[in-house]
Amino acid sequence: MRPVSIVGVGSTPFGRLEGEDIVKLAVDACRAAIEDSGVARSSIQAIYLGNFVGERLAAQGSLAPVVAGRMGLQGIPGTKVEGACASGGLALREGFLAVALGLYDFVLVAGVEKMSSMPIGDITAALSTAGDEESEMRTGLTFPGAFAMIMEEHMNRYGTTREQIAQVSIKNHQNGLNNPKAQFRRATDLEEVVNSRFVAEPIRLFDCPPVSDGAAAAVLCPAEIAGDFAGKPVRILGSGHATGPSALTDMGDLTTFSASVRAVQNAYEMAGVGPADVDVAEVHDCFTVAEIIATEDLGFFPKGEGGPAVDSGETELDGRYPVNPSGGLIAKGHPVGATGVAQVYELVAQIREAAVNQIANPEVALAHNLGGSGAVATVHILGRP
Amino acid sequence: MRPVSIVGVGSTPFGRLEGEDIVKLAVDACRAAIEDSGVARSSIQAIYLGNFVGERLAAQGSLAPVVAGRMGLQGIPGTKVEGACASGGLALREGFLAVALGLYDFVLVAGVEKMSSMPIGDITAALSTAGDEESEMRTGLTFPGAFAMIMEEHMNRYGTTREQIAQVSIKNHQNGLNNPKAQFRRATDLEEVVNSRFVAEPIRLFDCPPVSDGAAAAVLCPAEIAGDFAGKPVRILGSGHATGPSALTDMGDLTTFSASVRAVQNAYEMAGVGPADVDVAEVHDCFTVAEIIATEDLGFFPKGEGGPAVDSGETELDGRYPVNPSGGLIAKGHPVGATGVAQVYELVAQIREAAVNQIANPEVALAHNLGGSGAVATVHILGRP
Repeated sequence: MRPVSIVGVGSTPFGRLEGEDIVKLAVDACRAAIEDSGVARSSIQAIYLGNFVGERLAAQGSLAPVVAGRMGLQGIPGTKVEGACASGGLALREGFLAVALGLYDFVLVAGVEKMSSMPIGDITAALSTAGDEESEMRTGLTFPGAFAMIMEEHMNRYGTTREQIAQVSIKNHQNGLNNPKAQFRRATDLEEVVNSRFVAEPIRLFDCPPVSDGAAAAVLCPAEIAGDFAGKPVRILGSGHATGPSALTDMGDLTTFSASVRAVQNAYEMAGVGPADVDVAEVHDCFTVAEIIATEDLGFFPKGEGGPAVDSGETELDGRYPVNPSGGLIAKGHPVGATGVAQVYELVAQIREAAVNQIANPEVALAHNLGGSGAVATVHILGRP
Repeated sequence: MRPVSIVGVGSTPFGRLEGEDIVKLAVDACRAAIEDSGVARSSIQAIYLGNFVGERLAAQGSLAPVVAGRMGLQGIPGTKVEGACASGGLALREGFLAVALGLYDFVLVAGVEKMSSMPIGDITAALSTAGDEESEMRTGLTFPGAFAMIMEEHMNRYGTTREQIAQVSIKNHQNGLNNPKAQFRRATDLEEVVNSRFVAEPIRLFDCPPVSDGAAAAVLCPAEIAGDFAGKPVRILGSGHATGPSALTDMGDLTTFSASVRAVQNAYEMAGVGPADVDVAEVHDCFTVAEIIATEDLGFFPKGEGGPAVDSGETELDGRYPVNPSGGLIAKGHPVGATGVAQVYELVAQIREAAVNQIANPEVALAHNLGGSGAVATVHILGRP
């Protein structure tokens, strides 16, 4: 494989973006990424687009050709990939592999979702298709319900407290405060989190991400030519992708996602780094407890110590492992198919030392994207050029 | 790129398969493909799965991880790709590239769709997401409507007759008669086709494919080791993939699909062959006129001569270009995400000289898969090992 760099990134704001359709969101992010890169639009040879529920919530499938056409790139190969909420990470991985393996020199990667136009019942039903329909979801399980069981198990097994878990929400809201792309730019506190209404006991409203619209995009090229363009390049040091159980009933242990563990091992190995080398991470906090589990699965903290770690500030901006400086899914927002690319949008800014919540002198950044309750995960490790 | 072979294929029957859920269909096809190949299941390193409307019609997204898990392959990278009715072709292309570029040695490719459980209005709405929602579909256009305009234009421009177009349906029904996987195993005649009820004038019922459930799968590996297994190998000589206009309004000419033309050019170039070398083809006859257009876009006949060609028997089993010996989408059935892989299932049998409607001594076989009204196309060219 040849080294690959990201030379440009773009993103829409995340939020309830009325009047912005799914194609326009994707096109806006793509246009911004190409502009940031300085690569000529006509150089783009392929597009990989991550999207999850576009057919259900935006009546739009076949998004890669539609977006390519609106971008004036009609004709190039366009591929939509879907792995529930890890669709964006999958798009990045496919784009990375295509450049790394020499298939293309210039690839556009995008992730997009338009969720807010539909009633909440339709949104919940659409998101539930990420689970195992036959084994589990048709019984009425939803994702807040699934993560409620996971949260209870983490509390029971490791003594993780309600207050520790709440710190994830408090930290991420604090981080989102400065992020112009974030859906929520307001602080919260322990009292508000632990008194917010139950969504699925013990998960409360402030343990959850919002319903979001948004898109993010990146332009990839071989590292050896990445310095030739206006966009300050960031190297993709490693990429990992793995599947895991789609149903809770198939998980031997509800407090770890085997797909995350396997994906990060592959990514660390490819990058030649380990958890101790990670300076900043965007992880998949689809619920507060999911961030705690991610920091354990990624090797930042031993199993069961993710709760005390967030409580003691180790994942804050000035902590040992700054996690979700963007605000994460909980505060920045979670347009599901966009998230995996949006994480990389944030981390490219970190490595370029141009982020709003800039970590001091970061050399290695990690993006972790999860689909379903651990059915699929991707990890990408970014670094200096 | 290193040469790639298909060493095993599998397929469910196509039809209204009551009681068969989408995951079971995919697993049945995958199991059959692995068994046909003789490759150990534990050797499979990745799965690429094509599916279009699983979230809408089967309440199941995230299909690649779910199917990998049910196959006992949990952990391996699993990627679902979607490009409307070309989703299966895209899965094959991604699997082919992954082996050709040296990423994996053994890849499982699958395509699946479960459509028949839902009311026809839901099916029509789901399929309409293949079009350009903002520009066109929200006005109420459906795919029979789109292809009705295309059919009228082909008739107006080239003098193609109603009777010539009907011959596609007659031929494909005749071919489906012998295919144990086909949904329709009954002949039809000119009188029945041209008197069947209008779906969208001038398209009649017998110009359309049925609503179908089904799945198909293939096992791919490097050609240099393909002879080591029980399954008789078939070489993938070429692969092409291109996008085109998603909306009719963006097509300069309604009688040709630029994505097909570009994809086949790429595939011919990679394979080092031309249309004159093709001995048998499975093409995307999502409507009768689409087969005629495909035979022109693929270079079998000059523009405007596809109608007379089918009328004079040139695409019959003993004609110059046997097209859709399986019965095609119209008679064999069209479980939309499965079709691109199912075409290759049929052509592998042709190259192995084990097909039900066997063409004499075929050396080069071509599969053409189309999404939407030409938004995306894939072409794969198969040959002897």
